[in-house]
Amino acid sequence: MMAREMAEQPQVLQRLLARCSEVHAMVREIVLARPAGIVLLARGTSDNAAVFGRYLLEATLGVPVGLAAPSLWTRYDRHADLRGQLLIAVSQSGETPEIERIVRLVQAAGASTIAITNDADSPVATAADGSIALHAGVEQAVPATKTFTAQLVALALLAGALTRRDIPALKDLKLIPALQNELLSDVEGVRSIAASRLVGARAAVVVGSGFLYAIALEAALKLLETTSLPVLPYSASDLVHGPIAVAAPDVPVICFAAPGPVRRDVEAAAVAARDRGAPVIWISERLMDTDAVDEHLAIPGTVAEPVVALLHAVRAQQLALEASRAFGVDPDAPRGLQKITPTR
Amino acid sequence: MMAREMAEQPQVLQRLLARCSEVHAMVREIVLARPAGIVLLARGTSDNAAVFGRYLLEATLGVPVGLAAPSLWTRYDRHADLRGQLLIAVSQSGETPEIERIVRLVQAAGASTIAITNDADSPVATAADGSIALHAGVEQAVPATKTFTAQLVALALLAGALTRRDIPALKDLKLIPALQNELLSDVEGVRSIAASRLVGARAAVVVGSGFLYAIALEAALKLLETTSLPVLPYSASDLVHGPIAVAAPDVPVICFAAPGPVRRDVEAAAVAARDRGAPVIWISERLMDTDAVDEHLAIPGTVAEPVVALLHAVRAQQLALEASRAFGVDPDAPRGLQKITPTR
Repeated sequence: MMAREMAEQPQVLQRLLARCSEVHAMVREIVLARPAGIVLLARGTSDNAAVFGRYLLEATLGVPVGLAAPSLWTRYDRHADLRGQLLIAVSQSGETPEIERIVRLVQAAGASTIAITNDADSPVATAADGSIALHAGVEQAVPATKTFTAQLVALALLAGALTRRDIPALKDLKLIPALQNELLSDVEGVRSIAASRLVGARAAVVVGSGFLYAIALEAALKLLETTSLPVLPYSASDLVHGPIAVAAPDVPVICFAAPGPVRRDVEAAAVAARDRGAPVIWISERLMDTDAVDEHLAIPGTVAEPVVALLHAVRAQQLALEASRAFGVDPDAPRGLQKITPTR
Repeated sequence: MMAREMAEQPQVLQRLLARCSEVHAMVREIVLARPAGIVLLARGTSDNAAVFGRYLLEATLGVPVGLAAPSLWTRYDRHADLRGQLLIAVSQSGETPEIERIVRLVQAAGASTIAITNDADSPVATAADGSIALHAGVEQAVPATKTFTAQLVALALLAGALTRRDIPALKDLKLIPALQNELLSDVEGVRSIAASRLVGARAAVVVGSGFLYAIALEAALKLLETTSLPVLPYSASDLVHGPIAVAAPDVPVICFAAPGPVRRDVEAAAVAARDRGAPVIWISERLMDTDAVDEHLAIPGTVAEPVVALLHAVRAQQLALEASRAFGVDPDAPRGLQKITPTR
């Protein structure tokens, strides 16, 4: 199921992109002026999509964007004054009671609320002032794949709608479905890396920076879920301070890099990892200038950040899928994990 | 050095608490009205203190609080409009060029800025509108200890100053130095856990929730730095979804719990870990009601959240120190890590 759902992504994104003007109309009805700030609310995989949104929305709108601390709302009953703010709730199923409850509390606190959920009639979507339904179809595998990339696209559409103008950085979105198809048929390299670098590893580290930090978080979560391997995600700058201590010959370091201003930070992290004897798996459109790379997984095309994250996300999914197969684990239902999030 | 610097904490905190009115006067001169929001800026260990501040400041002030994404400021040149906001920069040395640069950019963007650094004349403190010097004395060991707990206290003083009233939840701060002294002389249990549960482990998981989530992050960073063991921190709610897959008989789960509304979430995480055969190390004022605990490290006194985090922080340091000794690593300079943060 995971493989099939991954393969559906280009179509899901194509359909979502075709609904761009519908999303813009919805947003313009709800958000009448530039919000003073934006708060993103999510858990698990959706929280990784929210980290992408955190960078994208602050970069495009120029207002402070943060992630909600759910426990302050539902456990400590501390409800911040969010008048003039926009809350964006991201939930795959839209059925997490905690998320629904916070959406209602935030509305009472004065904020506008927009939900991003798979279906239009989910409890979270119904609670919010407006919603973007992903219409990604039923997702049965425990590791979320097509809904994750659809969440990233929905956040990009939202950023475009909120700025009320075309964002040059997002114009390449229409190239993504074809490039994802290209990627999805290119699995030989991933399979070989899973078998030679991840089987037998004691742990793994995943590195990303800027817009790809969210992809590093998601790759770590997916790999950990499907293989039970301890997988630690870091931004490049954080890794090279203390956590680099964990890099070792049996702890490979997986790097997500793209053309752009943080590429050199990820390169520095790769060099530091190699200095400690860790195998470096480099996922990028081209190799580094140094020879600190043991394995290279290519990203096709010439798509720039932030949109290129939608291609790196597929590489992350492929790594998790092929690693679970190499580990002899059922990727669709690894170690008895549940699909629906019971947080109340 | 790490042990000696840990032992200095009660005195450092005592001195800092005695400067409460100085801090209040400084804050009242700079922040004339309640800020529209607060942004915390930090890296590494200071970033974990910032996570504590994120919860504390939002809970006490009732305004949205978030963590800065440094790369947006220094790599992508995307500078959010922060007029009416307060930026709090937390940096142990106050010498990280990246942090200093962002403080100046944020000032130009219209925000008030307050720095928390060890010395009053550090570049970051000099750049900010006002600063709280920790005066913790030179910190030579690579793992920061006394400056971390001093940062938590400085954030609590700041919260008090910003609310312009006594915060009942903070009144127990004066009890902390004596209780820390009590803790610091109680190392037998920690030593035994390090030898029996961490030596030979494949990895470890640390769990906290709410105000203790920051302590879980810090415990994981310290343990990883001193032992090179892969240590993964999670909030209790996040753990019980996907990441619980990593819990296993050779992957102990360390839980930080306190009386309060999230205690039951941490208990549920401990039970889930135990169900997968993971040894549970429970750090709390009392045992759980269930028998899902293999080791118990007590927290003395009857201090409530958020202040009790200053006691859990000492337990985290003790675990890192005794683990490094049990692993045969020099805790003061583990695996060639550097003290000063070179991020530019």
